[in-house]
Amino acid sequence: MGGVSKLLDTENPVFCAFITCGSILVLKMMCMSILTGLQRIKYRVIASPEDVELFKGKPAVASHPDVDRVRRAHLNDLENISIFFLAGIGYALTDPNPSVAVALYRTYTLARIAHTIVYAVYVVPQPARAISWLIGYGITGYMAIHTIKYFCCGH
Amino acid sequence: MGGVSKLLDTENPVFCAFITCGSILVLKMMCMSILTGLQRIKYRVIASPEDVELFKGKPAVASHPDVDRVRRAHLNDLENISIFFLAGIGYALTDPNPSVAVALYRTYTLARIAHTIVYAVYVVPQPARAISWLIGYGITGYMAIHTIKYFCCGH
Amino acid sequence: MGGVSKLLDTENPVFCAFITCGSILVLKMMCMSILTGLQRIKYRVIASPEDVELFKGKPAVASHPDVDRVRRAHLNDLENISIFFLAGIGYALTDPNPSVAVALYRTYTLARIAHTIVYAVYVVPQPARAISWLIGYGITGYMAIHTIKYFCCGH
Repeated sequence: MGGVSKLLDTENPVFCAFITCGSILVLKMMCMSILTGLQRIKYRVIASPEDVELFKGKPAVASHPDVDRVRRAHLNDLENISIFFLAGIGYALTDPNPSVAVALYRTYTLARIAHTIVYAVYVVPQPARAISWLIGYGITGYMAIHTIKYFCCGH
Repeated sequence: MGGVSKLLDTENPVFCAFITCGSILVLKMMCMSILTGLQRIKYRVIASPEDVELFKGKPAVASHPDVDRVRRAHLNDLENISIFFLAGIGYALTDPNPSVAVALYRTYTLARIAHTIVYAVYVVPQPARAISWLIGYGITGYMAIHTIKYFCCGH
Repeated sequence: MGGVSKLLDTENPVFCAFITCGSILVLKMMCMSILTGLQRIKYRVIASPEDVELFKGKPAVASHPDVDRVRRAHLNDLENISIFFLAGIGYALTDPNPSVAVALYRTYTLARIAHTIVYAVYVVPQPARAISWLIGYGITGYMAIHTIKYFCCGH
């Protein structure tokens, strides 16, 4: 056929899984802002000089290891999840096997949630963080390569 | 029905509003690079060691609070607007009420422009920045939850 | 017509070029994580305190200029490529001249690959990095403005 309008369809389980998992990841990344805010309040770490008034009467500091940790986890999300959004939608348009595709989207989402937990909520010794990161990384790479082969090299 | 091809359509005001607001936000984020560059020139702050030659004859420094401020505003854009792109397109595909959807896209865009102004152009005391950030945060969260309910839990 | 379903089609060379170039940029950004990891191992720079066990028996340090350089290049990718993803798909939906559109997508992709090479692989004196950055910046801006004019101001 060649048309993708049947793929971008609420009847297509692959597309529904991508949009659902993508939206869950959006909410997960929004939690990072709340986590950062909670750590800032706990340790009285200000983001910007004008925020010092929010801690009036108490001395505010410029950084704390627990704030930095959440910030690193958030930046890691940006580095990994923003490219998953493009790779994931490209992969959905290659008309993949629905069971495989849905499983990959769900695994990716769970791996990123696990990554956040072991990195920034309950710190677990390595290689917990490395493994959860690698699962997401591998899925993104597989989807990007699969998409290039499909759209560039004929189908 | 189930088809979304009528939603991804230049006749659909919701989709047009999303693409237009998204492109305005792209231009807004591009302004952050210019703002950073102007602050770097003003305070002779280099981004990388090889840039020292761009300030020949004048001493260059590694950082300045006004450069750091624009960088923080830019990173806040990345953290918030990149997830809005996915939440916004998912929400457009749920066939929302057009008036509500267009109003949400426009409000989000104005809130993020206001956030940049009060954070990095004319620094306004808190809670100006907190309020503008929260409006965008709330809209993104609403869109993501609405999208999950629509695509995951039946429609 | 107004319908975009014929534009979001594997028969449309503009859409295929966008998805292919976007996926190549995803892989390019994934390389930044590998580059960072290699530099971390080389200079024994840890990302997080719990990673110290990965370098057991050897002292680990908190930062090194070559690690910071790759991190800056990665952040520059995030700032520029994540907005290209939205501008690029918006532009594809404006039914542009196929030859121009395909050339712009390919030029953008090559410019960003060149930017990474001169910034983080073989450091080349300025203005190599500035030029490669500016090409990508200009293309993103052109696409965003073209999209706004098409979707907002009638077509």
